Amino acid sequence: MTELAPPLEPLAFLLGTWRGRGRGDYPTIESFEYDEEITFSHVGKPFLVYHQRTWDLDGRPLHTEMGYVRPVGTDGAEFVIAQPTGITEIHAGPLDGQTLRLATQSVGVSPTAKEVRAVARTISVDGDTMTYRLDMEAVGQPLQFHLEAELRR
Amino acid sequence: MTELAPPLEPLAFLLGTWRGRGRGDYPTIESFEYDEEITFSHVGKPFLVYHQRTWDLDGRPLHTEMGYVRPVGTDGAEFVIAQPTGITEIHAGPLDGQTLRLATQSVGVSPTAKEVRAVARTISVDGDTMTYRLDMEAVGQPLQFHLEAELRR
Repeated sequence: MTELAPPLEPLAFLLGTWRGRGRGDYPTIESFEYDEEITFSHVGKPFLVYHQRTWDLDGRPLHTEMGYVRPVGTDGAEFVIAQPTGITEIHAGPLDGQTLRLATQSVGVSPTAKEVRAVARTISVDGDTMTYRLDMEAVGQPLQFHLEAELRR
Repeated sequence: MTELAPPLEPLAFLLGTWRGRGRGDYPTIESFEYDEEITFSHVGKPFLVYHQRTWDLDGRPLHTEMGYVRPVGTDGAEFVIAQPTGITEIHAGPLDGQTLRLATQSVGVSPTAKEVRAVARTISVDGDTMTYRLDMEAVGQPLQFHLEAELRR
């Protein structure tokens, strides 16, 4: 086992592989359910590595994304994400106990990607249960609910 | 083996794990050498998955980054990258044979990251040899050489 870098201690509650079910909705699409696997790992340096995949309920791959979580002192974090849809997201926000409230600092959109303007992510862990909620401002719609899930470690 | 998505065929020359040595320089740092491993893989969907790690010549981890390559028609690509230094990069550019010339579309910088303004990446494959050159505009310096490496599949 690689030793955890001390600056990561406030974020250690995220470590592990989390699996469960989520649901998504947005004015421009049909609501849907999905299965999800999220892994937060570390390599001994002061950041977490994040990998995420979702599947529809028939097992076909849907979304995937990956990136890094950077601690900011003992009560904040930054989240840096790349998506194969041509989107990058940088979020920052406070850490309150085991709840991370992240707001958009910057969204990058590749020339052929769909327009995404802002994303807010709240991630909360209670014991071995992770819940998150993602709000999105995209394709001309105001910031609103898009995704939520409950996962087990 | 998962079948390659047809839109990825022009980029199939990137697939594999590539290892070798690189060198870096910039006005604000000492020049240095590094060992590197790059993997381009796919999951059956129309994008490549990119993972990269470097080490100093004593085997200590230096940089890492990951992201996705998106084909644009048959003669172009977009590169979407997240870095644990708090930086995201989106590049786009033409594919000329097995040479990809990528210029910055957007750079995202987290609140606690160093300032990076633009990055240009040229990646070229000849048989089982990959060479790349990375130019960077950062920390008040104009766009100029930062990294180059030669890797073998």
